[in-house]
This record gives sequence, structure tokens and C-alpha cells, in this order.
Amino acid sequence: MAEDEPSLSLVWETFTGYQRTAALKAAIELDVFTLIGAGIATVDALAERCDTAPRGVRALLNHLVMDGFLTRDGERYGLSTTAAVFLNRNAPAYVGSAITFIASPMIMEGFTRLTDAVRRGGTAIPDDGALAPEHPVWVEFARAMAPLAGMTALLLANLLDVEHAPAWKVLDIAAGHGMFGIVLAQLNSGVQVTALDWKNVLAVAAQHAQAAGVSARFRTLVGSAFDVPWEDGYDLVLLPNFLHHFDPATCERLLTKAHAALAPGGRVVIVEFAPDDDRMGPPDAVRFSLTMLAGTPAGDAYTFAELETMLQHAGFQRATRHELSPSPARVVIAER
Amino acid sequence: MAEDEPSLSLVWETFTGYQRTAALKAAIELDVFTLIGAGIATVDALAERCDTAPRGVRALLNHLVMDGFLTRDGERYGLSTTAAVFLNRNAPAYVGSAITFIASPMIMEGFTRLTDAVRRGGTAIPDDGALAPEHPVWVEFARAMAPLAGMTALLLANLLDVEHAPAWKVLDIAAGHGMFGIVLAQLNSGVQVTALDWKNVLAVAAQHAQAAGVSARFRTLVGSAFDVPWEDGYDLVLLPNFLHHFDPATCERLLTKAHAALAPGGRVVIVEFAPDDDRMGPPDAVRFSLTMLAGTPAGDAYTFAELETMLQHAGFQRATRHELSPSPARVVIAER
Repeated sequence: MAEDEPSLSLVWETFTGYQRTAALKAAIELDVFTLIGAGIATVDALAERCDTAPRGVRALLNHLVMDGFLTRDGERYGLSTTAAVFLNRNAPAYVGSAITFIASPMIMEGFTRLTDAVRRGGTAIPDDGALAPEHPVWVEFARAMAPLAGMTALLLANLLDVEHAPAWKVLDIAAGHGMFGIVLAQLNSGVQVTALDWKNVLAVAAQHAQAAGVSARFRTLVGSAFDVPWEDGYDLVLLPNFLHHFDPATCERLLTKAHAALAPGGRVVIVEFAPDDDRMGPPDAVRFSLTMLAGTPAGDAYTFAELETMLQHAGFQRATRHELSPSPARVVIAER
Repeated sequence: MAEDEPSLSLVWETFTGYQRTAALKAAIELDVFTLIGAGIATVDALAERCDTAPRGVRALLNHLVMDGFLTRDGERYGLSTTAAVFLNRNAPAYVGSAITFIASPMIMEGFTRLTDAVRRGGTAIPDDGALAPEHPVWVEFARAMAPLAGMTALLLANLLDVEHAPAWKVLDIAAGHGMFGIVLAQLNSGVQVTALDWKNVLAVAAQHAQAAGVSARFRTLVGSAFDVPWEDGYDLVLLPNFLHHFDPATCERLLTKAHAALAPGGRVVIVEFAPDDDRMGPPDAVRFSLTMLAGTPAGDAYTFAELETMLQHAGFQRATRHELSPSPARVVIAER
């Protein structure tokens, strides 16, 4: 990532990075991309439709042109290809809602206190940040991240070849939006899903299960993954984006519980932002380590090697590593 | 700025842009770049020197490698060319302090409330944001922005060919750090500078004048640029990065006052982030319009054409447009 010429632009872009986040967030909150996609394409038309000041809309739209999300031809604005595919609420791959979580006050607070977090080696948000029991940010997460997670879940379902699988009994730990289990159930009518999470979060997952038409094969287990009994006999235990919140010893405790919950031949499936073993890439996975530092007491982005060590300590024999390209997520699967 | 392929990476990078700002801010606050520049180059050595947790330092450093500010070779970190030139406190072109202003809580608050600002067409920060009298953010500004402004001031001094100028009498309006006047005085021993700003801000400018060895030709005028009499007979009235805080009518009032303060043949010199007349570039100038929306009641990034109209209304006859490349700042000069 080093460059040869000194770049004051790179410094300035990074100094002002938060402004690009804020501009995109405002545009999503005002649903500007959906409106422009529907042909409401001038400053005045948008201002009238959104009940906003024209000078506010103009400044926002021009910023978004510079950022690559809009195009402009005279007084008319249009969607860039990226905005048309991912930010128009009517597009099948819409992921705009994710900003509600990724730039939520809770997550941003961790980064506001980042210098302190670096000093102490863990979040500087009081009360363990988002890991406090029943924290409402996870309801936000479940709603906001469902579209993005749905895409990753589909890639995972393909990796697992669920369409040719027998009638799996699946346990989805810290299910959140529930999408990882729900997509498996959608693609194979024999799959039964048990989703575990806080009660208020599971209400959102249950809505997603209903919308996906799999409610009859979707049941919920309410409470903390650490305290609630999981039952046993599962073919798959999913741990999607969960281990990174905890220190390795805690992860091993969870994996030991997963091991005990599996039927013979059953598998644990870990989905993570996993950096390479030398932490030199991929960029977003390496950066994610700082997200966990900012927001959790002792979490981290674990490498494949670190995850394999935890699995071994939890009694698993062998683990396999998988990419979910084009998603940045990676997968480790280990058999009981 | 449109691209042909839809890019989920662009969306993700923008969602998380604020995290890159926070990482760089933490690194500057912990003075990581200066320490690495001095050869303190491993996680453990830096953690000991900064009295921080090794896991915090590791997550921060690896993030900075991904962002282009550090290099890494095994366990040793080094400065990228950009960091060596601009972020090492011992480098002559150090500008790291600017983040203290650009990502100050005050400026960031405007962007936190950006959706509201777009709706109302002006800042959603109470009490007119940073424009409240004696607002302490301007002391922060004067300290933080001096190095970056010093570079721009040098480019401006070259544009004005100050070294071959007669003994100019210069008025620097809303002088802040004072660098625009100070650099002129440094390069021509006949130049006399009067700097106008709030009292607490001028204390910082006076320190800069002393450090530059021009105290004897640097005097201050305390108060609001709108209320304090400016006196007259100036050869140059500088308006560096000031007009963008106000609406056009207010700018015209200031320019009329500048006109009256000039000696015959005197010139007003406006330094601004000025977008092209169609507001299709340069990117940072176009984006700056949103910064003013977020932080001021009615300010804007004015185009060359808009500035020329204001100058005309204020009684100036002709104006010339200038670039300050490689700085993104632009200049309009108008003769009385």
C-alpha cells in the first residue's frame, strides 16, 4: 500500500473521510438515490419532494457527484452505476440500510474515543460497548444489515451446496437478522433452523423468516449464547460474525459448546472478516481489527491460523479455509 | 467521476470513511509517525514508548499500512513517503496538526447533523455554529492550521511577487494563524501587517509573528471584522478563507468595507476553495460547499463568477482569477 510520491491529497482525503460518510448517510436518509432513480432529477424537484432547502440539496448532490455516486448533466442528476445497483431502494442488491449500523452513533462513538482505546487495548465506550446484554444496537444491526448479509448468506449457501444437502438441523448463533439460516432454509425445504439471540433481535429475524416464507421451519432460542442451553444433534452450528467480539479464551468456550451441540459428522461454520496470517491483507479484514478494538473490550479480527488454533483447543480435528468472493467475508468449517 | 462497473467497495469505503479519519487522528495524537521516523519501529517498542497496550498499537499500525501511511516489513514498520513528508512532526512540511481542526468536535458535529442541515439549508448546530462571537474553535484553528496555511501563504506571496514589491501596508482580515500576512512580512522587510481577529485568536497569531521574526511589523486589531473600524490607506486587504462563512449580501458588505480601506491602486486579495463556475470541479472545492452547509447558517464555497459579482457590487472594477497549484486554494484579486 506504500506509494512513491508524497501525496497531500491522501492526507486530506483521510482527514475529511468522515465527511464522505456523512454525505452518503444523509443521502440515504433522504432517499435521494431512490428519488433520482425514479426521475426526480433536479435540485428543485428533489427539494420539493424531500421538503428540504434547495441550497442544501445542491451542496449534497454535487458532493455525491465528486464521490462517484451521482452523475450530472447540466441541471439534471443521474445515478452512477454503483448507486443504481446498491443504493436505489428499489434495486434488488440495495444495501443502503447498512449505513444505519456501520455509522450508528454507537459504533462511531468507539472511533471518537479511538486514541483511548489504543491506549487501553480495548473499547473506551463505558459498559463494554455493544456487548452489554440486550443492547439495542443489535436490533438496528438486524434491520440494517439484512440486505448485505443476505448476499453473503447466499454465497455461503452455495459453498455448503445446501441444495443437494439432506434435511439439516441448523443452529444459528447470534443470528441477528437471521439471514444465514433463513437462506439455507429457503434453498432446501428440509432444513430446520434454530436462531439464537436477544429477544428483541429475534423479533426482527422472525419477520425476515416470514418474508422469506420459511417461518414453519424457523424457531427461536432467546438469550445469551453463553448462558442458554443450545440442545444438541445439530448438523450445522453457524457462528456468523460473532467470534470477533471476544478474546480467544471466550471464543474457545463457545466453540467447545458448539462441538457438544453437533451430531456426529456435524460441522461448525465460522464466517469472519479474517485477515491473512501475516495481517498484511485483505485491507478491509486488517482494518476490521481496529473496529473491534474501538468497539469491544477484547475482540479482534482473527486470522485463519488463530481460528484454527481455537478450533483445535475446542476439540475439532481438522478445519478447512474458504473464500466467499466477491464478499470480503471468509469461512472456516470444522467437523466434529 | 462516474464509473462503469458497480463497486460495492466504493460503497463500503464511504460507509467506513470516518474510521480512516479516526485512525489517522489517533496516530497523530499518539505521535506515531514521529516515533517511527525516529526508528521506534515495532509494536512493542511503540507501545512501551507511548504507554499503550500492544494490541491497540498493532491494530492501529496495521490499519495505517492499509491506508497508505505506513509500510511493514515483518515486525518492523516504516513511514510511507506521504507520512514521512507530511506527518512526521520533525519534517519541514508537517501538516498533521490540521486534523485537530478538520476533525474537531465542532466541525464534526455539523456533519453529524448533516441531514438536518440539508433540510433547513444551513447548519443544524445551535447558535450559528462556529460563527458565534469569540468561539474557541478559532483558537484551535489558528494553532492547528498554521503549517498548512503557511504553505499556501508562500504560494500566495510568490503570486503577488512580494519580494519585488514596495513597502506594502497589509490588512489581514480574520487573520487566524496570521500566516498570510506574516509570510509577506518575512519575504519583504518593508511590509507592515495589521491582523484583525478575536483577541484570543490574535494571541496565537502574535506568537507566529514572533517565531517568524516579524513582530516589529505586525500589529493587531481586536474584534469582529464587521464591527471594528479597519482604518484606511492599505495597499492590500487580505480575505483568506473568510467569505465562505457568509451569505452573498454579507460578503458584499465586507468587500465594500475592504474597498473603502484601500489606498488608491490598492487591491483586495481573496483566497478561497472556489469551485468552477459549473460546480463540476475541482473535487475538494465542490465538496467544500457541503462543509459550509454543515457548519454555517448561510455560507458557501463561492465560484469565481459569484465572487466577481460580489466584487462588482462592492465597487471594484475588474478582478483576475488565479490558481495556487499545487494547493487547492484559488485566488481572486481586484483593484480598487
